Amino acid sequence: MTVKRRPGRRPGSADTRGEILTAARRVFAEKGFDKATVRGIAREAEVDPALVHHYFDTKEGMFAAAMQLPINPQEIIPILLEGPREEIGVRLVRLILRVTASEETRAPVLALLRSAMSNDQAIAMIREFFTSALLYQVADRLEVPHLRIEAAFSQMLGIVMARYVLKLEPLASADHDELVELLAPTIQRYFTG
Amino acid sequence: MTVKRRPGRRPGSADTRGEILTAARRVFAEKGFDKATVRGIAREAEVDPALVHHYFDTKEGMFAAAMQLPINPQEIIPILLEGPREEIGVRLVRLILRVTASEETRAPVLALLRSAMSNDQAIAMIREFFTSALLYQVADRLEVPHLRIEAAFSQMLGIVMARYVLKLEPLASADHDELVELLAPTIQRYFTG
Repeated sequence: MTVKRRPGRRPGSADTRGEILTAARRVFAEKGFDKATVRGIAREAEVDPALVHHYFDTKEGMFAAAMQLPINPQEIIPILLEGPREEIGVRLVRLILRVTASEETRAPVLALLRSAMSNDQAIAMIREFFTSALLYQVADRLEVPHLRIEAAFSQMLGIVMARYVLKLEPLASADHDELVELLAPTIQRYFTG
Repeated sequence: MTVKRRPGRRPGSADTRGEILTAARRVFAEKGFDKATVRGIAREAEVDPALVHHYFDTKEGMFAAAMQLPINPQEIIPILLEGPREEIGVRLVRLILRVTASEETRAPVLALLRSAMSNDQAIAMIREFFTSALLYQVADRLEVPHLRIEAAFSQMLGIVMARYVLKLEPLASADHDELVELLAPTIQRYFTG
C-alpha cells in the first residue's frame, strides 16, 4: 500500500496518474461501475476533472487501467465489429486466447475473477463493468440479444477458467488453432444465430 | 470444527460416517484425488476398509460426499449415456441447470470452485476429480476426444459462474427452457461433432 498524501489540487505531479487510479479503485469499489463518475473520481483524487480526462479518455479506460486489465472495451469492441460478421467467432476466440496467453496479461484478469468469487462488493462492480461497458455495448451495436452475448461470454469465461485456473488437460495445452476450430463455431452461432 | 477423537478401530459408531468423511477430506487434500485410496482413507479414519466400503461404494462417491456435492459422477454418467445420443446436449444442460437451481445444492458446487480459485492444493484435487472421475469417463465411454468434453464442461462452468457468481442479467434470470434452446446445440456439437 502506498501512503496517500493529500496536498490539495495539483496541476499534475509525477504520480498524479497513480493517485487518480488509487482514487478510481476506491470509488469503483464503493459505488460500482455504473454510478462512478469521472467527476467523482476527480473529487476523490483532489484533482481537476480535466486532468482525469487528460490521462484517461473514458470511464471504461480508467476502470481497465485501475484493474490493470490488459485490454479495455474500447479496444475489444472495434476488433469484434470490424471485419466480416461471419468471422466474428474466429476473431473473438483468437482475441481472448491471445490476451490470456501470457502470464503478465492474464494475471490481472484472473485477479478480477478471483475478486468476483470472494468479494461481494467487487462482484457488483465487475458485473456492471462487464455488462455496461462491454457486453451490452457489443450486443446493441450488432443488434444481438443480450442473452446470446452473455452465452458467448460464458463460453470464453469457462475456457479461461478451465485452462488457467483448473488447468484441465488436454485443454490447458491445446494450441490456439485447435481451440479456434473447436470454439469459434459456438461463438459464431451465438452472435449470428 | 468437530473435535477429533481417536478411540482406535470402531465397528461403526453413530458418527463413523462423519469421521470417515473428515479423514477423506484430509487425504484428498493431501494426496489429490488420483492418489487417494479407500485403504488410505480407512487408515486415516482408523476403521476397517470394509466399513468405508459399507458407507461409500466408490472413491468417487466418497469425494462427492466429502465435498457435499449434490450429485456424484455415478449419477451423472448414466444420465448422459442413457437415452438418444442426439439429445445428449439437452440432457446435460437440463441436468446442470437443475442441480444448480437451488441454493442448497448450488452452495457446495460454488464452494468447490471458490477453493479452486484461491487454494493451490485444492486445485490439483479438484482437477483430478473433474477429469479422472467425470470428464474422461464420459469421453471414453462415448468415444469423444477429451478436448471436446472439456469444451462442453467449460461452457457449462462459464454459465454457472455467469449466472450465480457474476449474476449477469438477463442470463441469471433466464428460464431453463430458454437456456436449453440456446446452449444444448453447443453441447451437442461438442459431443457428436
